[in-house]
Parts: sequence; structure tokens; C-alpha cells
Amino acid sequence: MNVDDLRSDTPGCANVAHLNNAGAALPPRPVIDAVQNHFMLESTIGGYEAAEEKAADLQHFYDAVARLIGAHADEIAYVENATRAWDMAFYAIPFAEGDRILTTSGEYASNTIAYWQVAAAKGAKVEVVPDEPDGTISLDALEAELAKGGVRLVSLNHVPTHNGLVNPVAEVGRLCRAHGVLFLLDACQSVGQLTVDVTEIGCDMMSSTGRKFLRGPRGTGFLYVRREIVQTLEPPFLDLHAADWKTPDGYDVRPDAIRFETWERYTAGQIGLGVAADYAADLGTAAIQERVKGLAQNLRDKLATHPGTTVLDKGPRPSGIVTFTVDGHDPYAIKEAARARDVNVTVAHPIAHGYDVRAAPSAIRASVHYYNNEDDLDRLLAVLASL
Amino acid sequence: MNVDDLRSDTPGCANVAHLNNAGAALPPRPVIDAVQNHFMLESTIGGYEAAEEKAADLQHFYDAVARLIGAHADEIAYVENATRAWDMAFYAIPFAEGDRILTTSGEYASNTIAYWQVAAAKGAKVEVVPDEPDGTISLDALEAELAKGGVRLVSLNHVPTHNGLVNPVAEVGRLCRAHGVLFLLDACQSVGQLTVDVTEIGCDMMSSTGRKFLRGPRGTGFLYVRREIVQTLEPPFLDLHAADWKTPDGYDVRPDAIRFETWERYTAGQIGLGVAADYAADLGTAAIQERVKGLAQNLRDKLATHPGTTVLDKGPRPSGIVTFTVDGHDPYAIKEAARARDVNVTVAHPIAHGYDVRAAPSAIRASVHYYNNEDDLDRLLAVLASL
Repeated sequence: MNVDDLRSDTPGCANVAHLNNAGAALPPRPVIDAVQNHFMLESTIGGYEAAEEKAADLQHFYDAVARLIGAHADEIAYVENATRAWDMAFYAIPFAEGDRILTTSGEYASNTIAYWQVAAAKGAKVEVVPDEPDGTISLDALEAELAKGGVRLVSLNHVPTHNGLVNPVAEVGRLCRAHGVLFLLDACQSVGQLTVDVTEIGCDMMSSTGRKFLRGPRGTGFLYVRREIVQTLEPPFLDLHAADWKTPDGYDVRPDAIRFETWERYTAGQIGLGVAADYAADLGTAAIQERVKGLAQNLRDKLATHPGTTVLDKGPRPSGIVTFTVDGHDPYAIKEAARARDVNVTVAHPIAHGYDVRAAPSAIRASVHYYNNEDDLDRLLAVLASL
Repeated sequence: MNVDDLRSDTPGCANVAHLNNAGAALPPRPVIDAVQNHFMLESTIGGYEAAEEKAADLQHFYDAVARLIGAHADEIAYVENATRAWDMAFYAIPFAEGDRILTTSGEYASNTIAYWQVAAAKGAKVEVVPDEPDGTISLDALEAELAKGGVRLVSLNHVPTHNGLVNPVAEVGRLCRAHGVLFLLDACQSVGQLTVDVTEIGCDMMSSTGRKFLRGPRGTGFLYVRREIVQTLEPPFLDLHAADWKTPDGYDVRPDAIRFETWERYTAGQIGLGVAADYAADLGTAAIQERVKGLAQNLRDKLATHPGTTVLDKGPRPSGIVTFTVDGHDPYAIKEAARARDVNVTVAHPIAHGYDVRAAPSAIRASVHYYNNEDDLDRLLAVLASL
């Protein structure tokens, strides 16, 4: 991996030390060009006319995402963002009174609110599987809960947004398959920074976003749904794209993952997201994963040298998300001080942590990507030194 | 209205005779610039950082749309597209067994599929109110159905996608208010070509898209929900933006239309849609409406001179959507012949007409906007002459 070349291919690197890749990463030039060119084509000849001319690029999105995550193209839906992708899967599950939903303490708060909404409406129960001491989900506890029966869904995120953790999702997948329980994976923070292979993981449904580690445009996301279960899930919303009109008075829901889509869409974003998926796959997710892990460890090591800094990350093999506090300094003030020096970090507010809300403080979140370099990390350290 | 200036402000006019404004209109330069500039800012300094820098522009979207349609800013939600905007309202309605949904024969098929889905799930009934001979909804028949009781929702489109019709929505609104019945208006094809004032119309909810007559970017839409009813509608999906986390284990759904949004979004599109709303409001919707109506009539008059052409439009005051057939010529072949001469039209396929599917043929749809000129119309006539 030639980092200098990758930085040259990322115009934003000339302006900022971008350590907010878990928020939205800087897109590479091919993604920027794909989005800009299609948007300009729409403005030049018309939106529908542009889509017809670039039909192959729009279709390629499905192949590109399928290749990246080890799926089949017909298992991929283009959705407006990861939240809606996750929603289309989660709200499609026909929960009944007493059904159990198992999740983790680090679940994203938006997902948790959705669990509670469905629990209130359908009488399902939301249960948090205990953590191991290192913060990952306890597989023993998960197995014990699955064995008790009544579990309709195991749903968790691969990489929580706020604490560096990487959950052992392939092991979770194995347990879910052994017990015949649906497994919904929120891969918002993992696709693009880790090797994420749906077959290896064994999840039934997986949602992700374009704008984070995948380096695609904002306002794009996708949903994977395993072929074998897609027809058991009726989407919560249907339109004339997700379903075929059957005269006189009926419809057939599409047999593939397209059933989770809507016809209207941000077409330039779809093309750009396909390009982003190709870009990651061409670089190789194993190489990306290794580079991100190494940089994140370097950052943790550097932070350890700064007085009063506490790194909060959890797990035996933490991700590219680095969270920390600095004694006597408000995280929001640090974020502003960094921004003033063109160093981008953000604040992981406990409210987004969901169940961790009672335990975790607000923290600075610095999330690295393969195109960051040591200088980017040092610029953050210089901000801390200036406080 | 200085059409030459408006055309100069629309780069696409130099390339195409764009008569597909009911598909996606050509955006004006300020919309193009707003989207491009924000997207480039995201690529230059980071997506979240760009959103923080342009927070006022993002916020302005709500004021701009509210001004355009006579609403309050807190009644507006930014939604990914008109379908999802409509979905968020429709699927929020707590239908019960036996509830009646009244619609029209010209309802958009996507909406009809949604009615049927809810009817099957909840035991609601979908009923088509008869048309007047001119194709508009029969207000007498609507009043009679409302008087029978049991109606939970009146739901229809302002301008159907396929037949030029403009429904008498203010009269429908008056009847709904008189009977205390919810009124959901699909204004996908009317916002941007007609004066659409929610107070005058008296609808409770209204959805629309960015890309059609409003001339905004693809992948944008909005939902209006009247202040007085917003808190009676629980959105079908919730996230941490639509609801506030309440420790330890609960949430409060937002009190305003933001409850229908998701946090993730196409931010550049939101800014662009705000600019598009300003552009329309600044031109004046009364002037736009008059210009579109005049051009559409001129096109119908010209088409009447072409042998074998049948104009199919309905209603006493047809919209900018002009539909017609030409004896002996397949509409798709005409569309291709036009495209080869840089004239953009599309085909209104009966399947999209919903209930009209059994009656209407496939037709050429030529939809005019204020920036079209007589030359654009003549170019379409030249295509027909060349067949």
C-alpha cells in the first residue's frame, strides 16, 4: 500500500488531518469524479436521460458491493442510508408477543430506540447479553440465552461507534445458525475498514453506509439480505419498484433484495458508492485492515505519552476508532481547538452509546483510515500539547 | 418572466429540448452550484465538518420549503425522496379493522400497493371514489362516501403522473375538514409547477420530491405535516434524531415534523433543495403556473395539427403534463426517435396509473416547464413529422 499515492488520490488530504473517518471519510478522486460527473450529466441532458445512459454503472453498484462483502448481487439493495437500510430489515421481521431480541451493551442508540418501539407495539422483549470483561459480547452468555429459546433475533453492531470495539461476529453467526435464529448485523463502522464477508460471518441481514470507512458519498447505504430468507421478509414499505403490479387488484413483492428498495433515489450517489466499493476491494480489505489497525495502535501509543490522557477503547483487537479523554479538558473544546488547526476529530457523546449511557463519559473520537499518516497523528498530538 | 434569462440560467437548455419535467427537470445554475459546492466542500474538509460550516444553509431548507408551500418551518421534514416522505406519513396512520381509505382512479400505483399492503395487514378497506366525466374526483361522490362514516383517510395525488389532470384539492380539503377526516396529498407533480399552499388546500400531510417541477436534485424530498396532528402520528421508523433518548430506558418522539426524518442524509441535496424552493418562490408560483399552463396548451394545439395524434389529457384545467398517442407508432419508439434528436420525452406506462391500468394505453408524456420555449415544442413536432 503506497500511502503517498493514496493521499495524492484524496484531495482532502492536502487540507486537513482527517481523523473523523468514523463520521464521514474523505472520498478518493474516482468517487468524487463519479458523483460529480453523473450529477453534471443530469444537469446537462436530464436526470432520467442520464440514468439511461449510465444504466450499466448503476447496475454495477450491485456487483461491486456483492464482491466487496462476499455476497451475490441479488442479495444487495441500494438504500438511502444505513439507518434506513437497517430499518427496512429490522421492521420487516414479523415479531410476535413474547419474542426475544438479543443485543449488546454497546448497541447504537438509534437501533435501541427501534427495538423499544417494536417491543411496545408487538410485545417483544429486548435483552442485553452481558459483556466479557474486555467489552466484547460474551459468547457463553449468548449461547445460554439462545438455548433458553424464544429468541427471534440477535442484532448488534460489528464495531460500535464509540469505543474501538470489534465484536466477534463470526462466532455470533455460528451460534445463531446453530440455533436457527435470525442475525442482523449493523456494519456501519466496519465495511471499508475491516474484511467483512457475509458468508464468513453468517449473518442473515447486514446494513452499512457509504460515507464512513467505505469513502462513498453521503446519502447512500446498502442492505444485504441472504437469498434463503429474503422471501420470508415483507418490507415495511412497498412501492412499484419493490413490488410488481398484478392486474387487476394485487401485487407480487420482488423475489430478491430489490424488495427493500424504493424506485426514487440519489442516482449519482449509487454510482459513486459502486466506485467506492471497487476502490476498497481493489486495494484489498486485508491490507486496509492491517494498515488501519497499525495506525490506530500508533495513535494509542502516542496518546499514552501525553499527560492526563486516558484511552477508553475496548476489546482484544480494537478498530480504527480511538476514543480518549484528557483530564481537565472538555472534549468539545478539544474538538474546536483541533478544527482550528485543520485537524478533524469528533466527540463520542454517551447518548449515542445506548445502553452504555450510564457508564461512559463524553470522549474525543479520532478515527483513522489507511490514507492517514504519522504526520496526521502528530498534528493531533500537537493540538493536545497546545491546550 | 424573462424566458431567455431563465434559459441562460439553465445549462441543460443548450443541449436538449427537455420535455421530461414530470420525470426530472433540468436544475438551474444556483441549484447546481449549491450541490456541487457543498459536495466539493465535503471532499475538501470532510463531510461532518462541511455540514457544521454550512449549518445555516442546511437549516434554511426548512424555511425555504415552508415559505414555498405556506407552512411553518417546524411542519417540514427533509426526506430522501417523495416515496419515502409519503411512506413516513401513510404508514404512521394507526389503521384499524374496517377503516376506509378513499382514493381516486388516477392514484399512483406505488401508493395503491401501499394501501393494499396495509389493507391486508390491518383489515382496512381501499375504495376508489368515482370520477366526474372530466376525470377529476367527483366531489359529490366523495361527500357521500364521507357521510357514510368509517373513513380514516382520504389520500390522492394533486396531479396524476400520466394524464394532465389537476384534482380539485382545496375542495377535497374542505370536505375532509368538515368530516374530521385525515387528508394526505401526494404533491409530487404539482409543487414547482402550480401554486401549492397547504393552508388553502387544507391537507394534513403532503409529500413531494425535489427532482421534478421544483428543479432540485435527485434523491431529495420533503414531507409537510400539520402542526395540530404531528403528535398524533408515530413514525413507522424511529432513530436518535426522530426521538430523544430518555435515560434509563425510554425515548420521547420529537414534537415536530423532524420526527419523520432520519439523521443520516444527502446533505448537499438538502442545501440544493432549499435553493430550488427559493428559486421557485422568488419567480412566483402564480407566474410559473400561468407560463406552464400556456405552454402546455400551445403544445396540445400543435399536437392537434399532427395527423393521427390523440391528446389524452383530462380535466377542465390540465397541467404541464401532456400525454398523447400517434396512430401506428409505438410510444417507446417515439421516445427513442426524440432522444436521438435531443428531445426528451418519456412514456407513461399504464402500470404506473394504478387503477387506470385497465383503461389507459401507453402514451408519450411531454411535460413542459417555464424554461421551455416554442422552439422546444416545435422540435418535438419535428420528431413526429420525421416518423
